[in-house]
Amino acid sequence: MRIPSDSVRPVLWRDGAVVLLDQRRLPGEVVHLTCRRADEVAEAIRAMVVRGAPAIGIAAAYGVVLAADDLDPAAALDRLAAARPTAVNLGWALARMRPLLEAGAGADRLLDAAQAIHEEDVAGNRRLGELGAAYVEPGSAVLTHCNTGSLATGGYGTALGVIRSAWAAGRLTRVYAGETRPWLQGARLTAWELLADGIPVDLLADGAAAALLRTGEVSCVVVGADRVAANGDVANKIGTYALALAARAHGVRFLVAAPMSTVDFDTASGDDIPIEHRPAAEVLGFSARRVAADGAGAWNPVFDITPAALVDVLVTERGVLERPDRERLAALAGPGDTP
Amino acid sequence: MRIPSDSVRPVLWRDGAVVLLDQRRLPGEVVHLTCRRADEVAEAIRAMVVRGAPAIGIAAAYGVVLAADDLDPAAALDRLAAARPTAVNLGWALARMRPLLEAGAGADRLLDAAQAIHEEDVAGNRRLGELGAAYVEPGSAVLTHCNTGSLATGGYGTALGVIRSAWAAGRLTRVYAGETRPWLQGARLTAWELLADGIPVDLLADGAAAALLRTGEVSCVVVGADRVAANGDVANKIGTYALALAARAHGVRFLVAAPMSTVDFDTASGDDIPIEHRPAAEVLGFSARRVAADGAGAWNPVFDITPAALVDVLVTERGVLERPDRERLAALAGPGDTP
Repeated sequence: MRIPSDSVRPVLWRDGAVVLLDQRRLPGEVVHLTCRRADEVAEAIRAMVVRGAPAIGIAAAYGVVLAADDLDPAAALDRLAAARPTAVNLGWALARMRPLLEAGAGADRLLDAAQAIHEEDVAGNRRLGELGAAYVEPGSAVLTHCNTGSLATGGYGTALGVIRSAWAAGRLTRVYAGETRPWLQGARLTAWELLADGIPVDLLADGAAAALLRTGEVSCVVVGADRVAANGDVANKIGTYALALAARAHGVRFLVAAPMSTVDFDTASGDDIPIEHRPAAEVLGFSARRVAADGAGAWNPVFDITPAALVDVLVTERGVLERPDRERLAALAGPGDTP
Repeated sequence: MRIPSDSVRPVLWRDGAVVLLDQRRLPGEVVHLTCRRADEVAEAIRAMVVRGAPAIGIAAAYGVVLAADDLDPAAALDRLAAARPTAVNLGWALARMRPLLEAGAGADRLLDAAQAIHEEDVAGNRRLGELGAAYVEPGSAVLTHCNTGSLATGGYGTALGVIRSAWAAGRLTRVYAGETRPWLQGARLTAWELLADGIPVDLLADGAAAALLRTGEVSCVVVGADRVAANGDVANKIGTYALALAARAHGVRFLVAAPMSTVDFDTASGDDIPIEHRPAAEVLGFSARRVAADGAGAWNPVFDITPAALVDVLVTERGVLERPDRERLAALAGPGDTP
């Protein structure tokens, strides 16, 4: 079932196949890839046809349904697990599917389990979106960064889930999205999926965000998270930390929207989160077109760390934490969340 | 005369002509345009072959030398003045040249005056560079933004003049430059001119600057200014304000390098500086290639305002002001500076 402002799905099960929206080709082309074998799903994950940790986990779960038809289902599942071994949700989703496969469950039971994972993700995002929307001042604008939407999840999104809920409730005058260099997820993906749901969006250069907050139009900056440490420090797309500093300087609320599965109680603080650096070519050009002077180097971390002290609100599907810290996070955690 | 690390000149007088480095084609091609008539100089200014307020003023001054050969020299000078009417230095340079032209000065005397304007600019930048370099901690890195270098001035540059001086003095381990979306002046121009002088440079996405300052490697952020208000507020390329906030949050020195002619004593504060907004297409694409989703809008101010309270040091050719404010700026001003 869909609610208004929620039309985009990166992963679908249709007629016995996994159908993936090819995110590499957005926004120029809307093309779907149909996978009828588990290995085709694994290859699509590897090639980033589907991206975003929750969306990858869901695609893999449906892939296990196809694996049941393989000559060696366990080996097919292993290949799914190896497609992008660093994505936390991939391992989590496969850990839920594996016992069923090993117990010899048929395609129907596997499909039920995969759909449950998918539906739980969307339901969690809707809950999280409703909780977060209450923090958006009615009649104000919000600013977001990167893509944390339907495209990155089972549907509805995390930070974009908050924006969808606030928009549906009539609280928002306008949505601003940072273009998110170097990969331009904001310009390419966030703008595309919001416009697909009839939510107008204005893009800005990432460096312009502080000046935007100075205008007073924005009441809330809302972002997602790639990992939340046990003390509440947040690893997220490069550029997030600058937004948190600018928000604090202007008394604008800084809201992080993430499912509880993003909280890593094994990681004490942001200092313990390894930051991936990617090739210089991403900064020195765009989409294989070189723009920088020959000989220039580049500093290209994918993520940055926002200290918990700058996070005004952490919104999860289980509840909301204002000024999250180690104690409040631990109190929110269920028995399955702590190590 | 050139000193080491100062090889680039955007404007030259050679064999009776104004020779301009075509900045529209950097860094891909190094092409010079030779102007033998004043109207050719006016057109080159209009078309942004030459950019940067001081460089435009110098090009126009040399243009007046060519105007002396026109049938109607006064009309030719008027056309130079109209090429980019908003550039302060253009009007200032022509105001110095006009009395000579009207007094019937010959080409030799006009050339002397134009060369004096050019040489004063370079000498001022060298002085400013030396003064600013003293604020760079030896053995540290600096971060800059946009292009404030030889390409934007008569030579040597303002913020890049500080970097050239600090590099020549062996104080710098590394130069970081923000790519400066949407026009990418950092990636295209700053990287090109620093590398032309053998100064290595690492580019970064503008949103990554706060994370870079968090590493502790950078002791000083140094930027230029498009206008400094009487109270010390600074208008500069969009993204500057975010750098100032991040610098203050990390105890990194924030240094603004600008000639005294940039200080506008007629403008009380940054709130009185009109901010130009440019077409959405600049943000929605990348080097003339569309990247954003169809239907997306854009918020695209060219400049932002950094409050004086965030400026640790204002470096001018006349001296240095720590924590500039209305009183200190007025005290630095000469009789010709105040309205």
